[in-house]
Amino acid sequence: MSTLKQTATLLISCPDQKGIVARLSNFVFQHGGNIVDSDHHSDFSVDRFLGRIEWEMEEFDLSKAELPGALAEIADPMGGPEGRPWRLHFSDDVPRVSIWCSRQDHCLLDLLWRHRAGELRAEIPIILSNHEDLEPVAAQFGIPFQHVPMLGSKVEAEALSLALLKEHRVDLLVLAKYMQVLSDDFLRSFPAVMNIHHSFLPAFAGAQPYHQAHARGVKVIGATAHYVTPELDAGPIIEQETTRVSHRDTVADLIRKGKDVERLVLARAVRLHLQHRILAYGNRTVVFE
Amino acid sequence: MSTLKQTATLLISCPDQKGIVARLSNFVFQHGGNIVDSDHHSDFSVDRFLGRIEWEMEEFDLSKAELPGALAEIADPMGGPEGRPWRLHFSDDVPRVSIWCSRQDHCLLDLLWRHRAGELRAEIPIILSNHEDLEPVAAQFGIPFQHVPMLGSKVEAEALSLALLKEHRVDLLVLAKYMQVLSDDFLRSFPAVMNIHHSFLPAFAGAQPYHQAHARGVKVIGATAHYVTPELDAGPIIEQETTRVSHRDTVADLIRKGKDVERLVLARAVRLHLQHRILAYGNRTVVFE
Amino acid sequence: MSTLKQTATLLISCPDQKGIVARLSNFVFQHGGNIVDSDHHSDFSVDRFLGRIEWEMEEFDLSKAELPGALAEIADPMGGPEGRPWRLHFSDDVPRVSIWCSRQDHCLLDLLWRHRAGELRAEIPIILSNHEDLEPVAAQFGIPFQHVPMLGSKVEAEALSLALLKEHRVDLLVLAKYMQVLSDDFLRSFPAVMNIHHSFLPAFAGAQPYHQAHARGVKVIGATAHYVTPELDAGPIIEQETTRVSHRDTVADLIRKGKDVERLVLARAVRLHLQHRILAYGNRTVVFE
Amino acid sequence: MSTLKQTATLLISCPDQKGIVARLSNFVFQHGGNIVDSDHHSDFSVDRFLGRIEWEMEEFDLSKAELPGALAEIADPMGGPEGRPWRLHFSDDVPRVSIWCSRQDHCLLDLLWRHRAGELRAEIPIILSNHEDLEPVAAQFGIPFQHVPMLGSKVEAEALSLALLKEHRVDLLVLAKYMQVLSDDFLRSFPAVMNIHHSFLPAFAGAQPYHQAHARGVKVIGATAHYVTPELDAGPIIEQETTRVSHRDTVADLIRKGKDVERLVLARAVRLHLQHRILAYGNRTVVFE
Repeated sequence: MSTLKQTATLLISCPDQKGIVARLSNFVFQHGGNIVDSDHHSDFSVDRFLGRIEWEMEEFDLSKAELPGALAEIADPMGGPEGRPWRLHFSDDVPRVSIWCSRQDHCLLDLLWRHRAGELRAEIPIILSNHEDLEPVAAQFGIPFQHVPMLGSKVEAEALSLALLKEHRVDLLVLAKYMQVLSDDFLRSFPAVMNIHHSFLPAFAGAQPYHQAHARGVKVIGATAHYVTPELDAGPIIEQETTRVSHRDTVADLIRKGKDVERLVLARAVRLHLQHRILAYGNRTVVFE
Repeated sequence: MSTLKQTATLLISCPDQKGIVARLSNFVFQHGGNIVDSDHHSDFSVDRFLGRIEWEMEEFDLSKAELPGALAEIADPMGGPEGRPWRLHFSDDVPRVSIWCSRQDHCLLDLLWRHRAGELRAEIPIILSNHEDLEPVAAQFGIPFQHVPMLGSKVEAEALSLALLKEHRVDLLVLAKYMQVLSDDFLRSFPAVMNIHHSFLPAFAGAQPYHQAHARGVKVIGATAHYVTPELDAGPIIEQETTRVSHRDTVADLIRKGKDVERLVLARAVRLHLQHRILAYGNRTVVFE
Repeated sequence: MSTLKQTATLLISCPDQKGIVARLSNFVFQHGGNIVDSDHHSDFSVDRFLGRIEWEMEEFDLSKAELPGALAEIADPMGGPEGRPWRLHFSDDVPRVSIWCSRQDHCLLDLLWRHRAGELRAEIPIILSNHEDLEPVAAQFGIPFQHVPMLGSKVEAEALSLALLKEHRVDLLVLAKYMQVLSDDFLRSFPAVMNIHHSFLPAFAGAQPYHQAHARGVKVIGATAHYVTPELDAGPIIEQETTRVSHRDTVADLIRKGKDVERLVLARAVRLHLQHRILAYGNRTVVFE
Repeated sequence: MSTLKQTATLLISCPDQKGIVARLSNFVFQHGGNIVDSDHHSDFSVDRFLGRIEWEMEEFDLSKAELPGALAEIADPMGGPEGRPWRLHFSDDVPRVSIWCSRQDHCLLDLLWRHRAGELRAEIPIILSNHEDLEPVAAQFGIPFQHVPMLGSKVEAEALSLALLKEHRVDLLVLAKYMQVLSDDFLRSFPAVMNIHHSFLPAFAGAQPYHQAHARGVKVIGATAHYVTPELDAGPIIEQETTRVSHRDTVADLIRKGKDVERLVLARAVRLHLQHRILAYGNRTVVFE
């Protein structure tokens, strides 16, 4: 479904109503756009329409500057009292992603490798960490690394991080095994945060999930990528995966096997986000794969 | 994505061209239809568009009788020299399915259980078998069973089966571990045939795949549901699944574990077909899940 | 690993100590037994040895009657103050299993089909149910069915069930979607009870796990087979499996997809139990596969 | 099952006979060894016994030098006319592994990361490659890299590689997406070679398996780790894994998704080999997990 041509992607979330697909696809068609991907979903339990349309800009007769205004005319009314229900992304506006890590390297290394391999279409202007351990990994891939120690107050550390995210015009912050809880204030200032949790939530929320899993004697473990909300480990789930374990696996084995699941799940979630394939609403996500 | 209301489902396969989605969704919208599901795919390697649109008939202003004619006006031209590129299904026209089995009961029992549980929206007017072993299973579920022995020539047995399929107006024939090869003549007369093969094709085509798998020492086995074409085990693949095995598994264990995969894979494929979610083209399928 | 010859299976759980494997395998060897399967596990976190040895009785020079006494001499001391640490099973003593169901048929039907197919080596003298719905399923497979209504007090119903389990000399009670909680008194009188829970425990314990899963927006669902203890859904886990779901799946879809996982997981757990491959200790199980 | 104490691991493959487990475990016990892991398998189809016993050397009363001679007395006769049926590994003799790669970095990077993370207990004295592309990756992890160009004859390149493997006393050569076929002569001189093939063999042996898979329209793809034998892609299979794909996946998507499977499968196989958990016989493997 990938295309190397420049495309526009429209994401829309609004009260369910008749004719949305027709009106939007017609709009694209009448302006000469060739739809390369279109998907939508109606959640009847909350009467909500969620959709995604991607089209080629090549023969489209509206420029990037003209498009939002023209689109607003037909799409804004769909939002009703909720206000503007859509957002628009152009494939040549590359999202800017920051990764916040701690001491564990597997998720960071995996994301950087995928970025270099072209799997993740993003700029990574800066890596943050409350420890210096992973500075060499960042250096290997030529990405600036900023140590944000937690020595002083957490408020200060968050303020510094926030300033860096703004300075580097970061669109998405990925917590790649950053083991600290972000404050509500931080999330209000910068809400676009994704986290990888090392259990199949809602099982084993909180600290040391592999120890919890071992103590409970489960036969599968898992990992969960989710958007971060003020309530710990309770944000909208983007992606989950599990793997089998047995009585032979110690906590160390669970941690080792879990790492493979964590990096796969996080990478999938980041990729889906960068392709503008995820819509969160309430505590849920729609993932247009 | 299910709806209990009456719906129409349009499937279309035609040369790729601009505006198909817009024109079709517009057609539905202008006649008052509420689209409940819409998906499409462009296979750029062969310049082909494949799509599926399902909408509610409740407030639609064309009757079942009027719809084909009105649709033809806008959709027929999309086929170009290939001819009519679409077909239409109404949810109140329940497909008629026949199951052809042999001696193994697991796939037959599973399909009949799912049918009774409401997972498979179909009529099953008749079960065919070249053996009498499974007559009691058919009887348990109250489905007529016809023994079609292979004692005489295969030509005669196929002719009898064909007559039964026509008499019972069967839309789809499911080979549920029917271990015979159908003749080219049969398939020309009745091409809507689905089969479950007990390996992850193209590995281990032909006879005794579990013996082949054991001899090769594989660590995964699988099953494949596919449409039947004259070339053995080479038809378009609908669904596949695998499961892990180890050196401890004998051929008997592979057969036992494989049965669970076979019945899951076949049931999924039959359900997808009955929901008109599969489009085959060349040696491939698009499955709109 | 299966053998059609008569075998003895020794299960042992005792404080970890040197030489257990040597002494036990030597005992079998010196009496002429041919070991066909042997596995063991040391849980160092609680200093416990857990083992399983299966050998052919054909050329063994001790009879079924003589064996326990001879074995006790070398194996009883291994238990120390805990008392006798072993139990012995002969393959020609077929375990007697009762199934307790409610209204849902998928697990019952699956177990009965596997029993008839030879996958579950057991006698099933009686099926219990608090509803009459599944009597025809029991009848199809020729198994006696006893309706134990919950109209009066639960105490009476449990007393009747208990009497039936004793009358039929039942070794294992399988709760195949029996949706009631068993009393502590019942479990004290009959502790060999296995249950299938329709979530990947510890997530979504309690009632309506698929509704809980849908509300949480998870991307995987699962099922858990476990031994029943007085604390609800907290007994030792035997087997778990998960399957992927998406935003398109309604609660009804989760229930449908979950059924396939439930019956697979329960069947695996029952089979493992019948092969004497499970040792529970504390809140955990060792499963010798 | 891991232990940080020094252990000895005995692997044995011989004609099946009574008392092997008893005699070997007795030998270990009588010399004061504490067995930490013991597993065996009888392949009745070829009357072969395959076993693995690992015990702690701490209180064992034979030194590393004395052990082989003492063991030979009881274990050599088990081999009969086949000759010595066993081999012995000590945990403080760290295996020496060389990795031979080409241009693709994912498997190399993954193995080096796992090595650094302590998942792979091995020395990696040298990395070979017929291209210079991955020299920086080797440098990042501080491993010597040797470019062995294929410009001249393949015979010369193989001779140079062979000399390097001998010079560095390499025990195992891992082909991590080395896309060349090794000559029979090379394999005779250095038979301990493991390869990762990017399909679930025996499907899609040979070149460009993802292109083959796409052309066939499969719904699962996979990867296979196997020991290399002169017949291409036909050696004993160690590990396999599959992942789902759909009609939306282009060849490029299959390659991308396949990379994740390849590196997981190869890493598991290398780890199992380094833990001396694999016994190959004929075209099969026993993997003691």
